[in-house]
Amino acid sequence: MTRLFERIQESFNQQNIMETMGARLVSVEKGACEIAFDRSDHLLQQAGFLHAGVSATVVDSACGYAALSVLPEGSDVLSIEFKVNNLRPAAGQRFLAKAEVLKAGRQIIVTEGFLYDQDTGKALMKMTCTIFPVYPK
Amino acid sequence: MTRLFERIQESFNQQNIMETMGARLVSVEKGACEIAFDRSDHLLQQAGFLHAGVSATVVDSACGYAALSVLPEGSDVLSIEFKVNNLRPAAGQRFLAKAEVLKAGRQIIVTEGFLYDQDTGKALMKMTCTIFPVYPK
Amino acid sequence: MTRLFERIQESFNQQNIMETMGARLVSVEKGACEIAFDRSDHLLQQAGFLHAGVSATVVDSACGYAALSVLPEGSDVLSIEFKVNNLRPAAGQRFLAKAEVLKAGRQIIVTEGFLYDQDTGKALMKMTCTIFPVYPK
Amino acid sequence: MTRLFERIQESFNQQNIMETMGARLVSVEKGACEIAFDRSDHLLQQAGFLHAGVSATVVDSACGYAALSVLPEGSDVLSIEFKVNNLRPAAGQRFLAKAEVLKAGRQIIVTEGFLYDQDTGKALMKMTCTIFPVYPK
Repeated sequence: MTRLFERIQESFNQQNIMETMGARLVSVEKGACEIAFDRSDHLLQQAGFLHAGVSATVVDSACGYAALSVLPEGSDVLSIEFKVNNLRPAAGQRFLAKAEVLKAGRQIIVTEGFLYDQDTGKALMKMTCTIFPVYPK
Repeated sequence: MTRLFERIQESFNQQNIMETMGARLVSVEKGACEIAFDRSDHLLQQAGFLHAGVSATVVDSACGYAALSVLPEGSDVLSIEFKVNNLRPAAGQRFLAKAEVLKAGRQIIVTEGFLYDQDTGKALMKMTCTIFPVYPK
Repeated sequence: MTRLFERIQESFNQQNIMETMGARLVSVEKGACEIAFDRSDHLLQQAGFLHAGVSATVVDSACGYAALSVLPEGSDVLSIEFKVNNLRPAAGQRFLAKAEVLKAGRQIIVTEGFLYDQDTGKALMKMTCTIFPVYPK
Repeated sequence: MTRLFERIQESFNQQNIMETMGARLVSVEKGACEIAFDRSDHLLQQAGFLHAGVSATVVDSACGYAALSVLPEGSDVLSIEFKVNNLRPAAGQRFLAKAEVLKAGRQIIVTEGFLYDQDTGKALMKMTCTIFPVYPK
């Protein structure tokens, strides 16, 4: 386990909502992050699919950690805004959020993320997320 | 209780995720919807604020119901895409999502929603959500 | 003419693209800006409506000036990102872009703008625009 | 020259705004489109860069044509909404807009586009554009 992974895992463990989502940090590299989670009854909307907000929650966290991974230790990140397109109903069983940094400016970091169905490999949601880095004092 | 409220409440009750969020349908009028929920430990991110994805989940549902309220009975709605701006950290105790229809076209419905801190009245998040109406056969 | 209006007009005059659009600065108040322009053959898309990018250009400038109007003299603004929803075809003759500041943070300013048909009063486009303020040194 | 290219070129020629931008259709393949244009004084904002609305105009058209390229002849496309992130100032001389279809649903087509500086190869703007297909009767 890399120091980078440990550092992100530590923050991840402090996000209670990730436990609520049943989410697990899968991988972190400089500028990229993956988080997995599974279908669970308490995450569904009226048609029995994942609620789009659930997908957005996990992909937003993946985007935030992708951004955090390019910042010096002790930094933090704030999501300024994000936009999602729902590409397909999240009707599957196992999901993987993958995010990466598109452009790391000093004052603004632009990230992109996808939610994939792990069994079919199909993209279910696409997010663009703009992040404000908070540097250590 | 109006027939419109009952109809939306019925769909709301089928969204398990709303129960996970502790969310309650507050009001529905033609073209508008309000949903309330409270701070709870299992909804927080690492800094102790509501995760932005939680806010997005509830506001997205409010947007969907605002759209559903202008459609004939038996219709359904699909969120095509949404975009949020995080205006302030969601650090409070009680939250209110308010959504309304900006433009109801036959094939595309554009909605807007806010998340407010119920105690301070301040806007915490702004969403624009584009919805595809599914008419009854 | 207020000092604020003069200050924005000065920047406006340096935007050649505003002249290309035939755009005129109509009003500036603290946190708000209006810009007018007319239908012209060289701004149209294939169906004879204003190209959505033309509308976005003018509304983006209005958003930028709404943000600039709340900053100290000598500041500048950068559009980080914007998102538009096309509400109706821009089929009319005279258009008015209206923008206002939704939230003025020290590091991020969130603005919203509309394009209206001046004759019918109908909203044609809605924009949310996130702006990065550059303070004078 | 392929029949597909000819078909798109025909629509392109009817967009007066493309001539105003000095834009040229470079390539069209099934699900992808490229449009080039050059820096010109009448397209600039106050700092001497391309106005972001100009970039959005050309990338939006590229997205529309990418979508049109996957539809049967006689179809048309409407941009429902788009969102751009400005990644770098458009300070160069020659620009290339590249768009592709991310997901072609029957009722909604999601496209993505970039504006590149042709000399440095750097991405200047990223767009996500949601398109409504209008099928021939």
